[in-house]
Amino acid sequence: AQIALERDYEAQREFDTRLRVLMAATPEGTVFVSASTGVVSDCNPAALALFGKQRAEVIGAPLHDLLDAGGEGDILGALTRAAGGASGSELPAKTRQGASVTIRTTLFRATGEQLLLCQIRNGDVLSVRSDKLD
Amino acid sequence: AQIALERDYEAQREFDTRLRVLMAATPEGTVFVSASTGVVSDCNPAALALFGKQRAEVIGAPLHDLLDAGGEGDILGALTRAAGGASGSELPAKTRQGASVTIRTTLFRATGEQLLLCQIRNGDVLSVRSDKLD
Repeated sequence: AQIALERDYEAQREFDTRLRVLMAATPEGTVFVSASTGVVSDCNPAALALFGKQRAEVIGAPLHDLLDAGGEGDILGALTRAAGGASGSELPAKTRQGASVTIRTTLFRATGEQLLLCQIRNGDVLSVRSDKLD
Repeated sequence: AQIALERDYEAQREFDTRLRVLMAATPEGTVFVSASTGVVSDCNPAALALFGKQRAEVIGAPLHDLLDAGGEGDILGALTRAAGGASGSELPAKTRQGASVTIRTTLFRATGEQLLLCQIRNGDVLSVRSDKLD
């Protein structure tokens, strides 16, 4: 059992490395947030650039310190509703610096906790949709 | 040691789940390839859509069955050279169905093996670069 566990452990280390490399290389802002508390558990350099913040300021911070859903009210509630909606539904929001962004969200469960994956692009929803028509 | 290993194992399972969710939600084609053999070890639904293939046809297949680097010669060599070049350098290629794509590559080491992460977009390099000016 110990040997099997170590073999699994090795395989899982590989997933960890792939996740880190993929996040670092992805130009879209990528943020993992607790769906229950709204606290950011991980994010990539592209997200830090959008927020204009350092990693240490973002990890552990509540998402509403970083993003504003405007008329949609609470950002965590708005994102959770968007994640439960039609596939590919996108939420317009603003960074706390006032830049317009578009957020695609995916709600999932990992080791007993609900998490939200937020994929964040510069610009409003319309300009993102017109990109897709190219 | 056993308890610590199990705790790590739980944490690593979380990375596995995050990697799968992120890949599934990412609209850019995402492929992990062995840098030594050119064999695809993982890819996402967006990559399958670009290749026009089923997952079982792609996992374990050599990358040159899926992509053609044209004048750049061997696709694996061209991607490895691109990964070693200037940060953010992109390689134009064609799918075996003849569609133009642009590939961003990242070379990294995981559990003793060199891997290439390929992030693949529809369209040629120029149109991708003009997007970035928005």
